[in-house]
Amino acid sequence: MEFLVRSENRLPVETSADRREELRTAERARAMELREAGILKRLWRVPGRNATIGLYEAPDPAALHDALMSLPMAPWLDVQVEALAQHPQERS
Amino acid sequence: MEFLVRSENRLPVETSADRREELRTAERARAMELREAGILKRLWRVPGRNATIGLYEAPDPAALHDALMSLPMAPWLDVQVEALAQHPQERS
Amino acid sequence: MEFLVRSENRLPVETSADRREELRTAERARAMELREAGILKRLWRVPGRNATIGLYEAPDPAALHDALMSLPMAPWLDVQVEALAQHPQERS
Amino acid sequence: MEFLVRSENRLPVETSADRREELRTAERARAMELREAGILKRLWRVPGRNATIGLYEAPDPAALHDALMSLPMAPWLDVQVEALAQHPQERS
Amino acid sequence: MEFLVRSENRLPVETSADRREELRTAERARAMELREAGILKRLWRVPGRNATIGLYEAPDPAALHDALMSLPMAPWLDVQVEALAQHPQERS
Amino acid sequence: MEFLVRSENRLPVETSADRREELRTAERARAMELREAGILKRLWRVPGRNATIGLYEAPDPAALHDALMSLPMAPWLDVQVEALAQHPQERS
Amino acid sequence: MEFLVRSENRLPVETSADRREELRTAERARAMELREAGILKRLWRVPGRNATIGLYEAPDPAALHDALMSLPMAPWLDVQVEALAQHPQERS
Amino acid sequence: MEFLVRSENRLPVETSADRREELRTAERARAMELREAGILKRLWRVPGRNATIGLYEAPDPAALHDALMSLPMAPWLDVQVEALAQHPQERS
Amino acid sequence: MEFLVRSENRLPVETSADRREELRTAERARAMELREAGILKRLWRVPGRNATIGLYEAPDPAALHDALMSLPMAPWLDVQVEALAQHPQERS
Amino acid sequence: MEFLVRSENRLPVETSADRREELRTAERARAMELREAGILKRLWRVPGRNATIGLYEAPDPAALHDALMSLPMAPWLDVQVEALAQHPQERS
Repeated sequence: MEFLVRSENRLPVETSADRREELRTAERARAMELREAGILKRLWRVPGRNATIGLYEAPDPAALHDALMSLPMAPWLDVQVEALAQHPQERS
Repeated sequence: MEFLVRSENRLPVETSADRREELRTAERARAMELREAGILKRLWRVPGRNATIGLYEAPDPAALHDALMSLPMAPWLDVQVEALAQHPQERS
Repeated sequence: MEFLVRSENRLPVETSADRREELRTAERARAMELREAGILKRLWRVPGRNATIGLYEAPDPAALHDALMSLPMAPWLDVQVEALAQHPQERS
Repeated sequence: MEFLVRSENRLPVETSADRREELRTAERARAMELREAGILKRLWRVPGRNATIGLYEAPDPAALHDALMSLPMAPWLDVQVEALAQHPQERS
Repeated sequence: MEFLVRSENRLPVETSADRREELRTAERARAMELREAGILKRLWRVPGRNATIGLYEAPDPAALHDALMSLPMAPWLDVQVEALAQHPQERS
Repeated sequence: MEFLVRSENRLPVETSADRREELRTAERARAMELREAGILKRLWRVPGRNATIGLYEAPDPAALHDALMSLPMAPWLDVQVEALAQHPQERS
Repeated sequence: MEFLVRSENRLPVETSADRREELRTAERARAMELREAGILKRLWRVPGRNATIGLYEAPDPAALHDALMSLPMAPWLDVQVEALAQHPQERS
Repeated sequence: MEFLVRSENRLPVETSADRREELRTAERARAMELREAGILKRLWRVPGRNATIGLYEAPDPAALHDALMSLPMAPWLDVQVEALAQHPQERS
Repeated sequence: MEFLVRSENRLPVETSADRREELRTAERARAMELREAGILKRLWRVPGRNATIGLYEAPDPAALHDALMSLPMAPWLDVQVEALAQHPQERS
Repeated sequence: MEFLVRSENRLPVETSADRREELRTAERARAMELREAGILKRLWRVPGRNATIGLYEAPDPAALHDALMSLPMAPWLDVQVEALAQHPQERS
């Protein structure tokens, strides 16, 4: 099933550039793994914010939760999940 | 997977007593079928309101949607669904 | 550019079944045209509601507006549009 | 009577791993006691968040309050309680 | 247990003066019965609005629900209930 | 006149147990004085929260303000006041 | 004591011009009486809306309620009242 | 001074095409007059909605109010006005 | 033109009594100057809060902004401004 | 395409005057560059707040995002972007 995931990044402004870069690199690497696993399908930036909207696919909400919590930035992310129902137009 | 479902009933006040009773009887009957099918697991009233909170189980959001839309009151229900993730404490 | 579009359908409950079916058929047909034109990319149902979330692509907000207003259901839709920024992870 | 309890965990990100683990272990132990006492009946995770939704049963709101405050994480929990009324369908 | 009950009266403006007076008289009578039964303990007006705040006492939320629904104005009332926990200062 | 007063206690979690106890004792003592003065008439806990709902009586909002600010916890309280109008049912 | 009163006028658009004019004239006349009585002290329009913000003075919220309900437009007004406390700077 | 004006058009869906066209033509004509008078400086559509955002200039809020109320659609517009302060960067 | 100004004071609880007194004295002095200049016309306390509602008059929003920023407490104030339109009843 | 951009500046109160001045100067310089590039078209202050509303033009949301993130104050800005659709009245 698919989920719409809004994620506000609350990493404190005063985090050192090094730590920030380290987290971003790790985040990108983990996101790539989630893409390859077919869990993260699309990702957008919310313009003007340190925030993203993602389209995820997972067998159930617990699996989605585990995927989101595996992101290195997870402790600083304020996440809102919305479960999506398949639309009849897309049933093949 | 389980869902928390809030449902406000907007059936107009001026609906005739007969129509109202007819709808309530049909609603109860359909709810009983959903219980027997294991889709509707618990149902509560929100005190003071013509509203309910229900605990549902369905294979996915589309199946839940179909179950909710099969209720005779569906055209008048304002429904909010929240997907629940299994808590590790309840993994057996 | 891509847009996330939330759409609540406020078609009155008392609309006749015929009118409702006529509108739904026309809506489906127009949606299919928007898909073929590459404007409507994905569509989901919000479970429990007469509402959808769609992923659209259009050259600019005015073109998106025109596409949404071309839907036969448009007069009854309460629409919220959110412009999405391409995420660097998806720049190829 | 039954209560729906939403609980956002605001434990600061910078809490040490040891302290965090200690709190989690104690939390799990106390939750198990509340389950055995029939106070905590179901618990779910809100996907993507450090948050839970629980179904509790207690003789009255003050008893529920005491149960919730007995959780080791209580000082960091932002809790919203909703009293549920028994639905006639579930009166036996 | 005690409950705080907010009640907005949505009786349509165009209700005839007779019907309105009939409902008000019946409402007052029923409220007096609820007072005598110890269910309605205090009642205030929200200044400037056709709305009240009441302090109720009932054995549980279902009993409160039944009391509120027994009011002749109930079909037009938009009610919000809040369960109150006894404060230790008031435990005698 | 009477007021409904909601009060969220934002005393930081990391306040020492001693300071917390000292404040609570002083708060209780001052609350008792306000009760004896007929200013604080009822007090409830909001279940699950470090918050209260109180029924106060004071000659005017400025007097209520002074009473609330005389509470030792006042600097940490986030307070919402609602002025209540006497209901005709309670005019004797 | 003084009150800040926000008032949205929900008189239906389809009200006849005559009825509307009749109501407006009566409203103005009653407002003038409230001014002369020292109850209505200031009145502003919310720009762009059929709404006002008023500064009222009344002995208590019940008296304010009666004054507001004496306005011919009262059945169509959606009113929010805020009790104001005298500021020490204005104590003479 | 300049104002940001959000305007939701609540003209009922069932308004006849003729009446709707008549209103739109008159609205356009009046808007053009406001542009020529230097009161309406910019106008945008909110994508997906029958709503606009406008940049207006008027000597004061009352003059803006009069300009907005002179629009033929005014009875159906739900308007929110925000007064803008000149930014030092734009002081010449 | 007149403005309604809501102001929440977020001065941290842990500010020393000396600093707090110094700021309050300076605030009072500056407020008095604004009163004498005819900019601050009325000031109320929001009961129970460290907050005020004020009625200001200034030639335009930028002048109001400068007046508000001249208050010694300005860095800690969370301010909401609402532009008021003169009501025809008050046009002399 | 054009965007409406609301920006609340959360720079901590305790930032030193030097750092604050340095940031403001750099912010002004970068804003001027964005004006010359035709990206920042108008800028207003929200009266009473450390906040602005801006009218921006950029080829797409990602370009706008990059422009906003190039501002020296960006780490402290809480930004809300709204995509604007050209109004037919302004199509030449």
